[in-house]
Amino acid sequence: MNKRAVILLSGGLDSATVLAIAGSEGFDCYTMSFDYGQRHRCELEAAGRIAAALGAVKHNTVKIDLRQWGGSALTDDALAVPDAEDSHGIPITYVPARNLIFLSFATAWAEVLGARDIFIGVNSVDYSGYPDCRPKFIESFQETARLGTCAVDEGWHYSINAPLQNLSKAEIIRRGVALGVDYGLTTSCYNPDSEGRSCGKCASCSLRIAGFREAGVPDPTRYHR
Amino acid sequence: MNKRAVILLSGGLDSATVLAIAGSEGFDCYTMSFDYGQRHRCELEAAGRIAAALGAVKHNTVKIDLRQWGGSALTDDALAVPDAEDSHGIPITYVPARNLIFLSFATAWAEVLGARDIFIGVNSVDYSGYPDCRPKFIESFQETARLGTCAVDEGWHYSINAPLQNLSKAEIIRRGVALGVDYGLTTSCYNPDSEGRSCGKCASCSLRIAGFREAGVPDPTRYHR
Repeated sequence: MNKRAVILLSGGLDSATVLAIAGSEGFDCYTMSFDYGQRHRCELEAAGRIAAALGAVKHNTVKIDLRQWGGSALTDDALAVPDAEDSHGIPITYVPARNLIFLSFATAWAEVLGARDIFIGVNSVDYSGYPDCRPKFIESFQETARLGTCAVDEGWHYSINAPLQNLSKAEIIRRGVALGVDYGLTTSCYNPDSEGRSCGKCASCSLRIAGFREAGVPDPTRYHR
Repeated sequence: MNKRAVILLSGGLDSATVLAIAGSEGFDCYTMSFDYGQRHRCELEAAGRIAAALGAVKHNTVKIDLRQWGGSALTDDALAVPDAEDSHGIPITYVPARNLIFLSFATAWAEVLGARDIFIGVNSVDYSGYPDCRPKFIESFQETARLGTCAVDEGWHYSINAPLQNLSKAEIIRRGVALGVDYGLTTSCYNPDSEGRSCGKCASCSLRIAGFREAGVPDPTRYHR
């Protein structure tokens, strides 16, 4: 029997690549998405398509409500998603403690599945400024997860795998293309229209557009402006 | 303006005492409970009553579904809640990564509220064997929360307060009585009947009964057997 891994899958380019990488390493992949009240809910449908296309054993959409306290342009309609050039410091699209919550749920599911590996598509190169994407946070979470679960008494630990941590967006795209990822299934936009077409202007779109250009790979994204 | 704190409130004896302690320290208290699919949902009503009685500014019940993967007698109807004497090692009532998930949500809410203090009723003396109640986990979480939020860039940290960590159940009860906690509002049982009456036999009931006896305080709990 293959080893199991839980893969955090957003429906975007990065986490789709992570799923392909985990699969290529021989893991049976259990994918997890979050319906958290995000503005860009079309990513949830994308996540389901990606999980199926890349052969996940089971795909789980966890419903939580981060909109009840807001605090981010992605979870509060009163806050607008800025164009990429407006960003400085920690962006308004940062969702408080989001990856902390996502990784905590992944740890819970992993514990029940008997999985010791968790994969997440955080990245430090084409860098968003989100504190919960940095290596020090990921390392610290790994230790906290060990101490807060059966792992500590049983003498093992979770591995929080972040295989994109040191790759540029172009390198991520080249890696995914080599592994057969269909990026036409993915969506990265923070501010898509009702048909799921991307804005082409937000920070996430800008990084994605530049990545395809630099990788020399045709951009399969549908834009609405 | 008083400082704000987020208090994890289960509806049980310990967290009610924690809320009273936080209030006595001058915090404006924002209480948070979780409807996670637990067998003992009557604790949610208790939490609301306790929050009101002890003057919480706002009480928030967060709905999450830990029943979708089970793995605990509290979240899987196929697993029975054992009587206290059956327990050894990490008990079957341990819910995988529960406090990790609860603290992660508390961190998210605290970040939006501008609160730097989080209170949790974990305890090492009358000890359940749950890994996510131990001081090393709490300390590690505190550092992970700092690294995964705005705190790291702004140069401060969350304080995860566990004021019951080194108290016996009897000491907790005496402390709460001194602070005016009405323990008749609380419920600790893992296996209550449909009217919210306690079983008197599970590990949680056994600790509670012994605590009232040792504290010399009349036990206000309603039992069904």
